[in-house]
Parts: sequence; C-alpha cells; structure tokens
Amino acid sequence: MTKATTAQKAEILSQALPYIQKYHGKTVVIKYGGNAMINEELKTAVMGDICLLSCIGIRVVLVHGGGPELSAMLKKVGKESKFINGLRYTDEETRDLAQMVFAGKLNKDLVAQINAQGGRAMGLCGVDGNMLTVKKKESDIDYGYVGEMTAVDPGPINAVLDAGYIPVITCVGADENGVIYNVNADTMACYVATAVQAENIILMTDIRGLLEDKDDENTLITSVYTNEIPELIEKGIVAGGMIPKLQCCVDTINSGVAKAAIIDGRILHAILIEMLSNEGIGTMIYKGED
Amino acid sequence: MTKATTAQKAEILSQALPYIQKYHGKTVVIKYGGNAMINEELKTAVMGDICLLSCIGIRVVLVHGGGPELSAMLKKVGKESKFINGLRYTDEETRDLAQMVFAGKLNKDLVAQINAQGGRAMGLCGVDGNMLTVKKKESDIDYGYVGEMTAVDPGPINAVLDAGYIPVITCVGADENGVIYNVNADTMACYVATAVQAENIILMTDIRGLLEDKDDENTLITSVYTNEIPELIEKGIVAGGMIPKLQCCVDTINSGVAKAAIIDGRILHAILIEMLSNEGIGTMIYKGED
Amino acid sequence: MTKATTAQKAEILSQALPYIQKYHGKTVVIKYGGNAMINEELKTAVMGDICLLSCIGIRVVLVHGGGPELSAMLKKVGKESKFINGLRYTDEETRDLAQMVFAGKLNKDLVAQINAQGGRAMGLCGVDGNMLTVKKKESDIDYGYVGEMTAVDPGPINAVLDAGYIPVITCVGADENGVIYNVNADTMACYVATAVQAENIILMTDIRGLLEDKDDENTLITSVYTNEIPELIEKGIVAGGMIPKLQCCVDTINSGVAKAAIIDGRILHAILIEMLSNEGIGTMIYKGED
Amino acid sequence: MTKATTAQKAEILSQALPYIQKYHGKTVVIKYGGNAMINEELKTAVMGDICLLSCIGIRVVLVHGGGPELSAMLKKVGKESKFINGLRYTDEETRDLAQMVFAGKLNKDLVAQINAQGGRAMGLCGVDGNMLTVKKKESDIDYGYVGEMTAVDPGPINAVLDAGYIPVITCVGADENGVIYNVNADTMACYVATAVQAENIILMTDIRGLLEDKDDENTLITSVYTNEIPELIEKGIVAGGMIPKLQCCVDTINSGVAKAAIIDGRILHAILIEMLSNEGIGTMIYKGED
Amino acid sequence: MTKATTAQKAEILSQALPYIQKYHGKTVVIKYGGNAMINEELKTAVMGDICLLSCIGIRVVLVHGGGPELSAMLKKVGKESKFINGLRYTDEETRDLAQMVFAGKLNKDLVAQINAQGGRAMGLCGVDGNMLTVKKKESDIDYGYVGEMTAVDPGPINAVLDAGYIPVITCVGADENGVIYNVNADTMACYVATAVQAENIILMTDIRGLLEDKDDENTLITSVYTNEIPELIEKGIVAGGMIPKLQCCVDTINSGVAKAAIIDGRILHAILIEMLSNEGIGTMIYKGED
Amino acid sequence: MTKATTAQKAEILSQALPYIQKYHGKTVVIKYGGNAMINEELKTAVMGDICLLSCIGIRVVLVHGGGPELSAMLKKVGKESKFINGLRYTDEETRDLAQMVFAGKLNKDLVAQINAQGGRAMGLCGVDGNMLTVKKKESDIDYGYVGEMTAVDPGPINAVLDAGYIPVITCVGADENGVIYNVNADTMACYVATAVQAENIILMTDIRGLLEDKDDENTLITSVYTNEIPELIEKGIVAGGMIPKLQCCVDTINSGVAKAAIIDGRILHAILIEMLSNEGIGTMIYKGED
Repeated sequence: MTKATTAQKAEILSQALPYIQKYHGKTVVIKYGGNAMINEELKTAVMGDICLLSCIGIRVVLVHGGGPELSAMLKKVGKESKFINGLRYTDEETRDLAQMVFAGKLNKDLVAQINAQGGRAMGLCGVDGNMLTVKKKESDIDYGYVGEMTAVDPGPINAVLDAGYIPVITCVGADENGVIYNVNADTMACYVATAVQAENIILMTDIRGLLEDKDDENTLITSVYTNEIPELIEKGIVAGGMIPKLQCCVDTINSGVAKAAIIDGRILHAILIEMLSNEGIGTMIYKGED
Repeated sequence: MTKATTAQKAEILSQALPYIQKYHGKTVVIKYGGNAMINEELKTAVMGDICLLSCIGIRVVLVHGGGPELSAMLKKVGKESKFINGLRYTDEETRDLAQMVFAGKLNKDLVAQINAQGGRAMGLCGVDGNMLTVKKKESDIDYGYVGEMTAVDPGPINAVLDAGYIPVITCVGADENGVIYNVNADTMACYVATAVQAENIILMTDIRGLLEDKDDENTLITSVYTNEIPELIEKGIVAGGMIPKLQCCVDTINSGVAKAAIIDGRILHAILIEMLSNEGIGTMIYKGED
Repeated sequence: MTKATTAQKAEILSQALPYIQKYHGKTVVIKYGGNAMINEELKTAVMGDICLLSCIGIRVVLVHGGGPELSAMLKKVGKESKFINGLRYTDEETRDLAQMVFAGKLNKDLVAQINAQGGRAMGLCGVDGNMLTVKKKESDIDYGYVGEMTAVDPGPINAVLDAGYIPVITCVGADENGVIYNVNADTMACYVATAVQAENIILMTDIRGLLEDKDDENTLITSVYTNEIPELIEKGIVAGGMIPKLQCCVDTINSGVAKAAIIDGRILHAILIEMLSNEGIGTMIYKGED
Repeated sequence: MTKATTAQKAEILSQALPYIQKYHGKTVVIKYGGNAMINEELKTAVMGDICLLSCIGIRVVLVHGGGPELSAMLKKVGKESKFINGLRYTDEETRDLAQMVFAGKLNKDLVAQINAQGGRAMGLCGVDGNMLTVKKKESDIDYGYVGEMTAVDPGPINAVLDAGYIPVITCVGADENGVIYNVNADTMACYVATAVQAENIILMTDIRGLLEDKDDENTLITSVYTNEIPELIEKGIVAGGMIPKLQCCVDTINSGVAKAAIIDGRILHAILIEMLSNEGIGTMIYKGED
Repeated sequence: MTKATTAQKAEILSQALPYIQKYHGKTVVIKYGGNAMINEELKTAVMGDICLLSCIGIRVVLVHGGGPELSAMLKKVGKESKFINGLRYTDEETRDLAQMVFAGKLNKDLVAQINAQGGRAMGLCGVDGNMLTVKKKESDIDYGYVGEMTAVDPGPINAVLDAGYIPVITCVGADENGVIYNVNADTMACYVATAVQAENIILMTDIRGLLEDKDDENTLITSVYTNEIPELIEKGIVAGGMIPKLQCCVDTINSGVAKAAIIDGRILHAILIEMLSNEGIGTMIYKGED
Repeated sequence: MTKATTAQKAEILSQALPYIQKYHGKTVVIKYGGNAMINEELKTAVMGDICLLSCIGIRVVLVHGGGPELSAMLKKVGKESKFINGLRYTDEETRDLAQMVFAGKLNKDLVAQINAQGGRAMGLCGVDGNMLTVKKKESDIDYGYVGEMTAVDPGPINAVLDAGYIPVITCVGADENGVIYNVNADTMACYVATAVQAENIILMTDIRGLLEDKDDENTLITSVYTNEIPELIEKGIVAGGMIPKLQCCVDTINSGVAKAAIIDGRILHAILIEMLSNEGIGTMIYKGED
C-alpha cells in the first residue's frame, strides 16, 4: 500500500465535511461487541474513533455487553455456562459475576482507554440513575436473573452527554426493588437509541453484513428497508440470532431513529468509514413505506 | 422502649431545623465501610439516610471500598490474599478482581438500593471522567497495582451532583496510560472532600470513636483539634491503622474542610444522629490554632 | 411523656423520608389563621415549621388574614365592626385599617419571625406585582370595599419563590384603577393554590376537622371526596362558615390541586404531622369521581 | 403657556437620548417624601415618572417614609407625637402604628398607583428578605423603637429588580430576634443606594435646593463637592435637618455612588427634569478631591 | 415657534409613557429610504431616533435599499440604468455594484452613524447567516440578477438583537449555490417583519400618506383596513408603485403583524411622532374583518 | 498519484484526532489573502476548510482585505492607485471604493460561499458593533483616510461566534465621529487575535515561508522564536513587507497568542495541513525566552 501524500491527506480530511455536517450535534448509539472487543488493535482503534466522533461534535453513546469475558470468568470460578434456547441461564452467582465482569471490568477498562486517548468518558450501567426499568423475563421457562426492559429514562444519559462526557453503558439493570438482572446488550442499545432519539444506531458484529448468499461476501446487501425484512427472513437470508437483532432494529427505526447500520467490526476504523465517508460498509436499514 | 407519640415525632422533626439549615446546599463526603456495609439492616438504613440527606438539599457524595468482599472473592477463585505491612499486595489478577468487586458488584448494588428507596444515585469510580489521576505507589517495596493519587478533578462529581444524582464512588483509578490501580478508600474520600470543597467528611468505622482508654467506651473523646493529634499518637491513643486515617483527616481539614467526623457505623442511623441532632456520637476533628 | 431516645429521634427523622420525597420541589399553599395566629407558642412553632418545609425543598406559600386583630384595631380607634350576613361591612376607614393591620402589622411580623428562625421570607399582598385582579363584590347589598377576585397572576409569587424566599401574602388587592379592596383570605389561598399549581392546600382552623357528630371529636371524618360534599351539607355535617370554605376547596381540587387538608391549628406542629408523617390529623379532601 | 407643536414634542423626546443612554441599565435610588407625597397631582405625576424611568430600562428603587401620615394616625387614636432632639420617641404602640402606616397603608397605596399606570411594582420594607439588619439606636437617651442600620443585603432588592418589578421600600426593619424598629428614611435610602451600587441617589424635598441666601431662591447652589460641605455648614448655608441629610449623601458618594441630587418635589415632573434633561433643578453633590 | 419651557418638556416626556409601555420588548421593523436617506439632517435625526427607540427597550430592525445611490454609482462607471416595467434590469456588473453600494457603502455608513450617536448597530445583508433564501425572479422577462425571496430565517436577526445590537439590513441575498441577487427592499422589510413576528412595520416614504385627492394633503387617509384596499385601488387612490407596496403590507398584516404605517420621511422625527405620540402622521393599515 | 484506499482514508481521519483535540473549543484567527483569494479553486477549498474547522468545534475568525480587487475597481472608474512608501494614498473617493469592494463585494461573496458549502457565516467590518476604534494614521505624511487601530472590542466577534456563526471580517473601521478609514488587514488580524485571545493566528501568503536563501525553497525555516526575529532582519532573511508583518506577529505572541503561522496559500488545503496534521508547512513563530 502506497503511503498517502500530504496533499491526499488534506483532501481526504476535506472530503469528510458533508458527513461531519450531517451528524453535528446529533446523537449516535454504537453497540460495541464481537471481535472488535477482543482484538487489542481493533479495540484501541474503536476507542480512538469514539474520541474523534465525540470531539467533532457528535453525541456518541457506547453500549456494550461481554459474553465471552463472562464465560471466561465463569470457567475461572469453575462454573459451567448453561444455555437454554440460546439464552444463558443466569442463577444468582452468574448474575453477580456478569455484573462484575460487565460493569466492573469491561466497562471501566473501556472508559480508561477512551480517557487515555484524550476523550472524556463515564461508565454507567442500567442501574445508574435508574436508567432502565427491568423486570424478570416473562416466559414459561425460568431463565433466572434474565431481565426484560419496560422503560428507559434518557435523563442520566443526557445529563452525562450534556456535561461533555461520553456515556459507556453496560447491560445490567434493576427492578423496582433493586434486584439486578442481566439484559441483552443489542436490545438495550436499541431501547437507548429510541429513548435518546438518536439519529443512527450502529451495531458492530463479526459479519460483513447481510449476504444474499451467506457463503459469498460479494453478495453483500448494502441497504434494506424495514418492510423487506419479513421476506428476507422467509428466504432464510436473515436467520438465527440475526432475527431478533433485526427485529429490534426495525422497532428502533419505527420509533423514529433514521437508520440502523450493521457493520463489520473486524474492519479497522469501520465506524469512521460508515459515518464519515461515502464508502459502502455493511448493511444499512431504513424505514420502508408501509 | 416506649413508642414515640405523634407530638414527640413532630417535635423531633422540628428540632432538626437548625441542622438542616446549616448543611443546606453544602457538600458532605461520607466514607462508607465496615459493619454498616455488611449488615443488611444497617446497609438499608444508611442508604435511606443518604436519600434523606440528599432530598433535604445536602449534596452527598458516598465513597466506598470493599476489602472483605474482595477477600471473599479471592478465596472463591482459590487465590490467597497477601499483605505486606498491612497493605494488600495486588497482582494483576487481584487488581482485576478488586475492580470487579468494587466497581461492578458493590458499587452498583449500593446504587440499586438507593434508587429502590426513591433516591437517584449514579455509580462511578476514579476512572470515570478521569476523576482521579493515579500513579503506581512509590515505595522500596513493590505492592503491585496499588496506586497513589496525584490529582482529583471535581468536575465529574459536580456534574453528577448538579444533574441531581448522588455520586457513589469506589476506589479504583487509572494512570495516564489507562492502567488501572487500586487506591485506599479512606484516602480517596479525603481527596474527594478537598476537591469538592466539602463542608464535612464523615468516616464510618466499627469503633465508637477515639477513646482515652481503648477498653472503655465511656472514655470517648468527643472532639479533638488537629494540633492535638501528635500528642494523641505519642500517647498511643491513636495507633495502628488509625494513624494514617487521622493524618488524612488533618490534611483534609487543613485544605479547608471544616470538620471530620469519625462515627460508629454499627449504630443505626449514625449519620442522621451526627448530622441532624445535637447528640454526641463519635469523635469530631476540628482545625486547631497553630 | 417519656423523653425520646437518640435512637428514636433518628428513627423518626428517617421515617419522614417518603413524605419529604413526595413533596420535594412541589408547591404547597398554607392558609394560616385562627388560634395558631394568636397563641405565641403556636405561632413560633408554625413559623419554624414553615422554615423547615422550605429548607427541605418544598415551595411554601403562606396566606393569611387577621380578622380578630382588625376588630381589635377598630375598637381602638372607637369604630364598631359591622357585619351583614357574616361579611364585614367595609367603609373606607375600615378598609384603610384592614390594609394597615394585615399588610403592615401582621404580615411584616410573620416575616420577621420566619427570618429570626433562619428562614428567608418576603411579605406581599395582592397589590404587589399586581398579583390579584379584584373588583367590588357584586351583590344586591353594598358591602363597601369588599372585593372579589377575577384573576391571579402567579408571576410575582413564583419570582419570589424562585429567588429563594418564602412568600407571605395577605388578603388585600387592587382593582384596575388602583382602588384597594379587602378579599377573603380562605378564598385567596384557594385562588393562589390554583394559580401556582400547588400540590396541596392546607387550611389551618380551630376545629378538629369535619365531625360526623359535631360534639364528639372521636367521630372525625379523616377523608372525604369532592362528590360527597353535597350530601355532607344536606346532612348538616358541613354547615355555616364551613360551606363556602369547603366549596372553595372543591373548586381548587377541580382546578388540579391534588388535595385540600383542613387541619387543627391548635395542635403543635400540626403542619409537620400532616405533611411529614402517616398520622391522621384533620380532614383530607380528594377529588371524587363524577 | 403656548401648547407645544408636534414637531417640538418630537424634538424634545429626541433630546432625551443622551440622558437615557447614560442611565440605561443603571440603578437609581429615589427617596420620595414631602409635598410630592401629599399632593395628589404631584403624587400621580411622580408615580408616572417612576413608570417611565423603569420602562426605558433604568432600575429604579423607591424609598419612602411617611411622617405626616403617622402623626395623623397617632392623633386619630388619641396619642400625642413626642419628639426628643427632633427624633420621634417611639414606644411600642407608636412603632406598631408606624409599621401599619408605612408598610401597610402608604407602601401598598404607592404600589397600587404605579400598577394602575401600567408599571409593575412590589412593596417591601427592611424586614422583607432580611434586607436590613437593625439594632436599637445607641444613645444616652432612650428613643424607644428607633433603630439604626448595621448592614443592608442588596439580595432581595436585586431579586425584585431582576424579576422586572420596581421595589418600593419603606423604613422599618428588624433586629436578629425579629424585633421591629423604625429607621430614618433618608438614611435608609442612602444605605440602599450604597448596597445596590446605585449610579445616583435623588432626595425629593420641599425646598428649591441649597441656597446661598435662604430667603432668595435665585441664590440656588446648583452643584457642590463633598469637600465643600464642611464650609457650607460652618457658614450656616447648610443647617438643621439638612446637616444629617447631607452627611448621609457624602457617605453614599464616598462609597462609590456618583451623584446625590437634592431636588424640589413641589415641581411637577422634577425627577424627569433632573434625569432626562440638561435643565438645572436643585443641588447636585459630587465627589470632591481630597 | 416659541421655545418649550422646562415644564413643557417634562410634560411631553411624561406623555410618552403609554406609548413606550406599548412597544417595550416588542420588535419593530423600519424600512428606511427616500428623502430621509439623502438629506443629511434627516438622516442624522432618523439614526438618533433609532438609537432612542433601541435604548428604551424596543427591538428595532432597520431595513434599507439605496436606489438613487446605485444609479449615481452606475453613472460614475459609465453604465446606464436600464428599467423594464419599472424594475431595474440587473446584469452581473450592476448586481456587483448594487452589492457594493448597498452592503459596502450605505449599510456601513448607517451603522457608523448610529454608533457615533451612542447606539450599537451591526450591518448585515440577506446573505449573512443565510438569512434570506432567494431564487432568480420567475418571469417571462429576464430581469437578470433580480431575486425573489422564498424563505427568511429570523435566526441571525434575533441573534444580533439578543446580543444587544441593532440590525441594519440591506437588500441582497444569495441562492443555495451562493449566487447573489438583488431583492426589493420594501418586500424584504415585509418578509423580515413576518419572520421576526414584529409588532409593527413602518415604511418611510416621500409622501404624506394615502390621499383621497392626490393633490390635496388635507385629504390624508389616516387609517385604512386591509379589506378596504381593493376598493382604494379600484378608485385609483392607490396606484402605481404604491400597489405592490400596499399588497406587501397586507400580506404582512395577514401573517400576524398588527399594524403597517406609511409615514412621511421628510418630516423631522417622523418615527418618534408615529411611535411615541398620539399625533396623526401618515396612513396606518390595520387588519380588516373579512 | 495513487488513489487512497478506504482503509487509508479512515486511517488518515483517525490520525487527525490529536490535532482536533488540541484546537477543540479554541479560537483561531485566519488572515486570508493573496493567491488563495483570487484563484477560484483555492478559494473554494479555503472556504470548505473554514467550514470543516468550524464544524469540528474550532472557533474560526476569518479576516480579509482585498488590495488587488480595489486596484481593479479604481481602474474601472478611471482612478489611478497612488502609493507613498508602499502605503496607498486614500482620498475620500478611494476610501469609499475600498469600503464598497471590501465590505460590499468581497466580504459578502465569501460569506455566500461558506454558506453554500453548508457553513454559517456572518460578514462584518470593523464598524459593526463598533468593533474597532480607529483614528487617522499619525504621520508627517498625509495618507488620507488611512487609519490606525487604538482598541478592539471582542464583544461583537464573540457574540457572532457564540450564536454559532463564523465571523468574516474586513478591514475598515470608524473613528468616534463615525468617519470611516481603511486599516491594514494583517495588522487588523493581529489585533483581533489578541482581543479574542486566540490560540493561533494563521497568515496566508503567497510565499513558501521564511527562507534562508530566498531563491531556494528547500531552505525553508520551519520554526522561529520571537527573540530570533531581529537577527533575521539584520541578515536580510526578513525584509521589505515581511518586516511589519512579522513585527505584528511578535506583538500578538507577546500578548498571549501561542503561535503565529505564515503559510503558503497557494497550496491546496494549506490550512488543514497546518492545523490537522504533523506535516511541516510554512514558518511557525513561537514565543522565545528573553
């Protein structure tokens, strides 16, 4: 790869203008996870990108979980992860460990990394400022301390943004008696995006985006409308864990968020490419006419 | 104990007026720990007291550590606690577990309990908003990830207070490269009190206060001046772990905080008694003339 | 009466939390009068209670008249009080004396007493800031300078509250030509409560509350709904001067104020008991379903 | 007197520009009293002038007493006015009547008249918001409830001005126990002018100004410097009640108020002439070089 | 003309009170032009009047063109003015000269004169802050760079007013590509009045107002309702250039501006007479009932 | 030149982070002139760069003159430019034309171009808001309407910046009588930088920077300290028109502005390269130790 000349660099910066203008003063929610959270180089790059977006006047909210790290911790204390229908069965000990790993380790590590790059982050979870109202998941099966959200108060998030900090939020919340539950991070990101009336939500994943042929990255679907999703599910293009993820995006868009982007977190600076250039990366979901 | 009559209740409320007037709009830092953090009844009462103080217009900042809970966690993962000169040697794994227990488990549990009693708390640690600047403890002995504070930015704490939330802060912080260290919770409370220009600092302990005769609670020293401390140390009335605790109080008072109170957290509603009544409880430290 | 222990005192303070939370930041209008305005011990206690409520974040508005003091003044200048259908006939001289006694003597005395207890009060009447729009009472009978309110501007009251002062307001107002009239203090309190969108209105009286049997205080009606009032009037449980007082409460509740409380001002700290405890005192009026 | 033409009227308005610019946003304290307070035409004109000054962006504070009205009231209740060394001996009954006449009758009447001309006034006394700190006058002779000021808090006055109201303030205040005293209105106006850092103080009197020859109005001294006052006293040009009045002006000017004006309240619109024209009226006092 | 006495002057100032109260805090748009812009004495007087209105709390917006000065400039560079249907054909060179004369010379000269009289003005044109959205005039005939407005953003005007400056605005604007056009100053004044929700618009002209008989100034029509305009046009009382001017006034009034005044700029202080007195000057247009 | 890949583009954007952080919320004054003002491609690029800097949170102030355009205009009206000691002799006609060309044509054209690229600019000159206080240049030689600055009020500039607009300011100002003068644009930029307490001042020129050997661009001096300037003048490295330009930079740095940059406006995006990269471009001037 040839090194860019000074002139090229300046030109590239100047080309970002319309994108910066578009998002200036707007709120963007980024669900951070997957490879980009494990690979150190990618992690550093993402935290730098968050700093950049925040510094140029975009209100960035970072939401994260940490399934693999929790599994590692459970293993460490000699406890096996147990899944029912793809959902982790969460007994009290598991809930406690999740709370520790998510809100204590990962959350504060991310905050420290953003700060070390000159940003100003504040680490929160759904309990802080009573941001999330959660109750035990309603189901025939008992999943233990797995919660579902019933309300999101944008107050604490906006207070942190207004004070000039980047909120980094993880996926635990409490019910009205103060009992703490785990919640799904994707779903939480979507709820938060709706509550703060975000311009966009970006979900970082480990896939290239939606593919017509799942084995061929050249068949990437670059944009899709909400009303086309049912057909994509029927055809099997959207399947498995992508179904609830997309359904959640659809709800978010229907609540007024303009766009959901499913991007490939394995690509360096994927967020910058998505937000500050006209390059196609991942799959964009827009509101379709009914 | 005879039940108080309605008339007595009203009289008692009305007697709190001068104390409420005194602290109205002022900041008070409370170091929470010891028995009051382990006993569930006491914990619930303390969280209720915090709610009450906050609700009547006092800017309360709660600082906490969690040594016993960390020891329990270390035991759980089969790791022995190792102390050098009374300081816990903190290897990377211990640091990670401390971060998890303090910032993930205890901190968010306290926040959840305050919120469940109708308060509005936000859980932070020294990393958030880059509140603490920390470096590895300078010493001939290597204590691992034990840090010492070099600066405290009151910005994040005041932002949270100004937005109407009670900051609940735990004792981890990061250096300028984002490396996280444990810090001493008592010391952190004192630094925070100085940074936010608190009116008072209250340290909850498991002792009745300073005692002339350590075996006789009737010899409680109810107040002491900073310039009398050296003599108390010399006499052995202040000894062991109380020496650095008191030294820290002296520094805080010298920086402009009007009073430090060492109170007995084993007494129900000890904070309310100390702040909203004329009853003697524990030992007060005031600035002495040089 | 046994003296309360320190532990009891702290417990009692802590029990006030839910009530303080309920009223925090809300506006409460208190109509002050009767015995509590004449008895010095009661007066001092009421002014202290007002200070306490204000200090813990409740926006208190005190409204008062002063019939007995006016009668005394009239007697002093050798003028007889003249009543028609229970309303004082108010010639120009009587109007002037009322203005002097209410706005000059009683109002400023109350302000001075609140201030002497550490509060910050400001004494106003309906003329100040053109708060009340008044016109001569429409009636077949000429009552002289007896006015009726046609509008209340909450502006001056809110300005005083927002600047951190307790408004103490008395019952005179001016018409559009600057002619001053007396108005009824109960009615004024109700109008003010509606204008400032108060949470509650409290009317201090010299009775225990509404009684099923007017001669038996054990028959106190602790709560009543607005739609039950007509029946109470029919039954004679509400009679005489209580009829317009209650009608005024009903109007206030219909305008959106949640509760009207008729309390016995002869009981020490009656306001604190009513607002900060779960003890029954007096009669509460709530909105009834139509 | 020939009626002014439209062209003349417009010209006169336009000539006021530099004077309006000079006082715009500045605070001016006007001590109102004498004939201008008794004669109805003059009173109406003064209240209109106050409205005008306030409306064009000048922060006007009106201070008033009411000696003649108090004497009339005392007479009415059959009580003789008693003076010692020119000071009214003020027993408790007299103090109460003063409070009633000043704060209840005159103050609210003035407020009503300003409001009736479209202004927005609020009537206060030194008790309100604890504006004045007063103590019993120190003297070998007991004057009763005659107070002297020890401090003035500009807070309540500025709060009222900032909220867009004209403060109309009368001359009673309380000591720290809430005991009310009369204070001298001229002195109070001077203290208030200092506290609010007024641009000017205007004292309305019933004389043409300082006269070289007290029997010849043509010998009016139009301006005088503070350092010339002692000589004027020595010469007898300033004598009697004018001595304390002028001394008070000198103190006010020494505290930073630029000018004191002694004007003749018997002249219609004297305030407007003094403030918005280049016409000489009364005597101006400026700071003299030491 | 007899010189006004001091008493008359004061009386005249005091008579302005109700007019000042009426306009206080309101926005007034003044279209400045004609003789008042050419005659130096008139110009100085108008700028002084603007200062006065601004200083007494009226939000004044001055809008101006400069046809005669542009014609002079064109002549200077040897270019003939060319008119089609009364509209100046504006080629690129003419447009550039208009921009220079209007925005460079006249606008800044007016600002300098207001400032020299103690006012605080800021000179703008429709390009500044993208205040006007303009497009090339739609017509069968090509008028060159003659634009018509499609939108007015009150933001820049209010920003300047809120910062305490008098906006002086001239009649050029740009389309979305940054191409600059001339617009009609009368029309622009009307659009601006609508955008800033002005209380009044005043159009300074060189005529006495609408006349029943155009040759007899004694037949001045002092007020007219919008619904009477068609009849006036039909009768020929409104004719020629007055037709679009009046139509524009009608639109402005229909958009919520209370009054349009066509006044004779040849009269000294015509603006003050119109705004601050009850003297008839020119023709007022009010909203007529449909 | 090879086209940059998407990955390179993202990398380049991410590398700008520390520079954006450095200038975020700071004020930068850019003196615009020379080739970059004549060449259309360069002009468009500069206006885009200004938009970018403004959009990412830098408070940009653009200052410009327009000598060549004025000369062209003078020629057009058949008037010869006359220079004395390198300074244009400015008679009244020349002054008028300068005002028209600078404040009417160039200023508004620049504003229109910034706006057309999505920025929000407001065009001002030194007369607006009385920003500059100017007097006739003191000299033995009469230069006509050539002024020198005696004071700069940052108020109008900050008001425009605070309202979210980019101030574009040209080099004419008025004396206290409203007489308009031309001032030197470089000097004005320096004065403005001092008044607004800018972080940096950037002077766009048509040279590569200071050169050791004026004929060899490879001898560019990339940085110089203020205390080295005298030697550079002595050596002839700084000569001619560069002497006053540099002297002005030195004064600005001495007043607290951290850096002056002399950059080559002929290079595309020279401002972005200077501010957002670590590439050397032009000559930086820093404060030298005395």
